[in-house]
Amino acid sequence: MIRPDMATMLSYVATDISISQPVLQSMLSKAVNMSFNRITVDGDTSTNDALILMATGAVDTPPIESEDDPRYAEFLIVLTELCQFLAEAIVRDGEGASKLIKVNVEGAASAEDAEKVAYTVAHSPLVKTAFFASDPNWGRILAAIGRAKAEQLNVDQVSIYLDDVCIVKEGMRAAEYTEAQGQGVMRQDEITVRIELMQGTYSTTVLTCDFSYDYVKINAEYRS
Amino acid sequence: MIRPDMATMLSYVATDISISQPVLQSMLSKAVNMSFNRITVDGDTSTNDALILMATGAVDTPPIESEDDPRYAEFLIVLTELCQFLAEAIVRDGEGASKLIKVNVEGAASAEDAEKVAYTVAHSPLVKTAFFASDPNWGRILAAIGRAKAEQLNVDQVSIYLDDVCIVKEGMRAAEYTEAQGQGVMRQDEITVRIELMQGTYSTTVLTCDFSYDYVKINAEYRS
Repeated sequence: MIRPDMATMLSYVATDISISQPVLQSMLSKAVNMSFNRITVDGDTSTNDALILMATGAVDTPPIESEDDPRYAEFLIVLTELCQFLAEAIVRDGEGASKLIKVNVEGAASAEDAEKVAYTVAHSPLVKTAFFASDPNWGRILAAIGRAKAEQLNVDQVSIYLDDVCIVKEGMRAAEYTEAQGQGVMRQDEITVRIELMQGTYSTTVLTCDFSYDYVKINAEYRS
Repeated sequence: MIRPDMATMLSYVATDISISQPVLQSMLSKAVNMSFNRITVDGDTSTNDALILMATGAVDTPPIESEDDPRYAEFLIVLTELCQFLAEAIVRDGEGASKLIKVNVEGAASAEDAEKVAYTVAHSPLVKTAFFASDPNWGRILAAIGRAKAEQLNVDQVSIYLDDVCIVKEGMRAAEYTEAQGQGVMRQDEITVRIELMQGTYSTTVLTCDFSYDYVKINAEYRS
């Protein structure tokens, strides 16, 4: 969960541009789906999260009142980037987190399959403890992909990269891969795991963190 | 995962009674569904598990050749109990496990709902660290039930028991409950969490363990 001392996440975003309420809501939903709704610490959910987007209209410009306004897309991009920055900060601040991990699934047969694989890898305690140990354990990642219940999956077509290092090629340990390469990436405090399923065109990215002694400490001893 | 030093679970069960192969397979499937298929340490799966049931026929009795044989049910009960005993031993031996936790879900609208709720509670890192800390944190259990994606759920009808102590009554902390009672149960090394959903007649039980520092140690430092 996020910041158990607060038992909640409160986020406020404000702009001085004038934007109508329905347009604000539409922008917020889109931005949140690409940011706050793509992060996870342990799969457990905070119960009182809130993200509030306000437009004061203090700047004297004509209001944005429809999605057809060319400024809509412009504002949405900036808003999404801001939300991604904030969401990333939450994961970095996850209980006991020592690393930020971006799980990027590509080539899924459906959006659901992409999400299932990404979240199963992101929530796997075995994968998360391996990240904590800077252990490029490709078997644990591949096993999590295999148990993710994707509708369409062929293990013999799955490839896995740690940043730019290919560790699994078509279901097997990549021939040219050396463990020293994997460990080099694993020792960083920010790592991208890219998973290519080769089943279709859907993709997603989920942000998570590693699983450390301090995760247990913070969640077991929070009252002492 | 179970016993990462082995990376596998190998279980052999033998009887000297004569039983035909199809009947053995039928018995085994039923017994396994009530035992080995109802345990989880962390949600990650071992890749090479095997359970083998053999009938030597060394005892000179007529073979059991159909489910209609009255000895079928008799043998099935004993086999199931044996498998439950073995499966329970695996969970007690889970990485860093200090407690055996039986998650018993009752009153679900479907078998799927019962399983979703039981496994979500059994896999919740927040619930598991609370068990490690002997912390009767009913909010974490209730939150896990809430996010389990059961088709039919009304939080206002959910009650939760730790052994015989009612900690949540119809979605609220039980009026008569004192934390000392909950802690008394939590300090045991075997705990039953009973969850009453009041949505139907389906039930299930899943066995799991707590989440400790040693879980992280064993899975992060297994190579050093």
